[in-house]
Amino acid sequence: MSANPLAFDAAAWRADRLDEVELALSQWVGVGAPDALAEPMRYAVLGGGKRIRALLAFAAQEAVQGEREAGLRAACALELIHAYSLVHDDMPCMDNDVLRRGKPTVHVQFGQASALLAGDALQAQAFELLTPEDGAVSLAHQAKLCALLARAAGATGMAGGQAIDLASVGIALDEPQLRQMHRLKTGALLQASVLMGAACANAVSDRTWNALTTYADALGLAFQVVDDVLDVTADAVTLGKTAGKDAANDKPTYVSLLGLEPAKALAQRLLEQAMNALVDSDLEDTRALAALAQLVVQRNS
Amino acid sequence: MSANPLAFDAAAWRADRLDEVELALSQWVGVGAPDALAEPMRYAVLGGGKRIRALLAFAAQEAVQGEREAGLRAACALELIHAYSLVHDDMPCMDNDVLRRGKPTVHVQFGQASALLAGDALQAQAFELLTPEDGAVSLAHQAKLCALLARAAGATGMAGGQAIDLASVGIALDEPQLRQMHRLKTGALLQASVLMGAACANAVSDRTWNALTTYADALGLAFQVVDDVLDVTADAVTLGKTAGKDAANDKPTYVSLLGLEPAKALAQRLLEQAMNALVDSDLEDTRALAALAQLVVQRNS
Repeated sequence: MSANPLAFDAAAWRADRLDEVELALSQWVGVGAPDALAEPMRYAVLGGGKRIRALLAFAAQEAVQGEREAGLRAACALELIHAYSLVHDDMPCMDNDVLRRGKPTVHVQFGQASALLAGDALQAQAFELLTPEDGAVSLAHQAKLCALLARAAGATGMAGGQAIDLASVGIALDEPQLRQMHRLKTGALLQASVLMGAACANAVSDRTWNALTTYADALGLAFQVVDDVLDVTADAVTLGKTAGKDAANDKPTYVSLLGLEPAKALAQRLLEQAMNALVDSDLEDTRALAALAQLVVQRNS
Repeated sequence: MSANPLAFDAAAWRADRLDEVELALSQWVGVGAPDALAEPMRYAVLGGGKRIRALLAFAAQEAVQGEREAGLRAACALELIHAYSLVHDDMPCMDNDVLRRGKPTVHVQFGQASALLAGDALQAQAFELLTPEDGAVSLAHQAKLCALLARAAGATGMAGGQAIDLASVGIALDEPQLRQMHRLKTGALLQASVLMGAACANAVSDRTWNALTTYADALGLAFQVVDDVLDVTADAVTLGKTAGKDAANDKPTYVSLLGLEPAKALAQRLLEQAMNALVDSDLEDTRALAALAQLVVQRNS
């Protein structure tokens, strides 16, 4: 028997997309900026990170057979928003973290003022990447991608979730409240990753759009549940960041609320929900999206 | 003799537009956000500020006979970017200012973490306002407005200028270096105000676009020169913020570089440049733009 030439090689798929997004980011991030700003911007973005958001955008863009240039720019813009949120989140007035992806955090390396400005500039550059002035992406796609990203990043998305998180330290959130917080804090940008990829097509059926929304919703929540599990089961070297910090900060987590084993079981159920949603879509090839959902739940860092 | 019914009443024009932008901002800023985030966002934006950027956007949009809804959203988005930059700029790791528009700064009132998040969310909301999903603004206009705003706010615009400013404390910049810093730090967003207004039309002649660029460039620089003059001639009550802080921080200014009277003369020359540029355009009615240039140079706060 020979190997099935049509078999999907998830690792190879991922490696190719990671090469593509890393190359594009290194060609774009902070280019043209004053050195004092370009350095912390590039330090924050390049040479690290799992690029889950970029991979989700690619997988969705490919599943809907959307425009690649739009998909690549969406992937990079999502990573810039994610990177800026980490830079600001690590600052002393927020989580006061000194270690990220195994390196000193941006404010430790460059000072707080540079970290603040670099984060601000990364957010703006995300929208610059989505609006190329050379016609590489249609104006309609540009507008739709900006609309999705702005809402996912803003006060009714990621920033809103961070504000709830900040206000909830030491407060006993129940499971619906915790879910709502995470739906905004990490879920909104993960969902946008999938939907921005899908928005790179000229049209997507309602059935597929809804299925992708359900997939992304389940995947986003699963991501956070797994994060909470890893916070208590993994060590700092594997995580590349400080482990056990949620417990140390008295922050509510799925593990503190449900217990470790039930949290793991919840992650598995959410994975199944995500997989079932893909089956409900009109998409022909959802193998990359399926592989990413498995990756999110089965990762160890 | 009776009054000329066609005479332009600059004060009435301004008062009407201020009403319009304040109402829209109060209806939009932070709406839907968690309370802990909506409060500092609204505090940062509402009930204060000269709204120069909004007025410039309105004046340009009206001069090119562009779409009003797009002009209004551009005006508000510009004010959100400006407000976020002040919130972050006032933080202890930056200018460490405690007074702004006669009130405690956002981090003094709400804490540093809330100030950081509110600024981040305001930047995102600027792009939300530019991309309404109800068809109120064409997708082409949405994309062009996002492109202009992102570049003006980002690393090759405002954030870049702030980084240069930060790196220049105690360093003797010469006049070209100082001009370049201000061209980015305050000039880029002021220029975007004019060009975003102009981008609300379906088409603008090259002659008019270039004339408005020249107008905005001169006005942006004049704004900063006047700021530097007021920093040494006005008191904190009139300014609504700490006076004399540039000198105290050993920051280079037009006054420290040129002297007070030559700086005032430079502002006058820039005003003339701005006025001459308007004459060079194809625009029929530039009275509001002319009045705003005069306002920028002749303001006392």
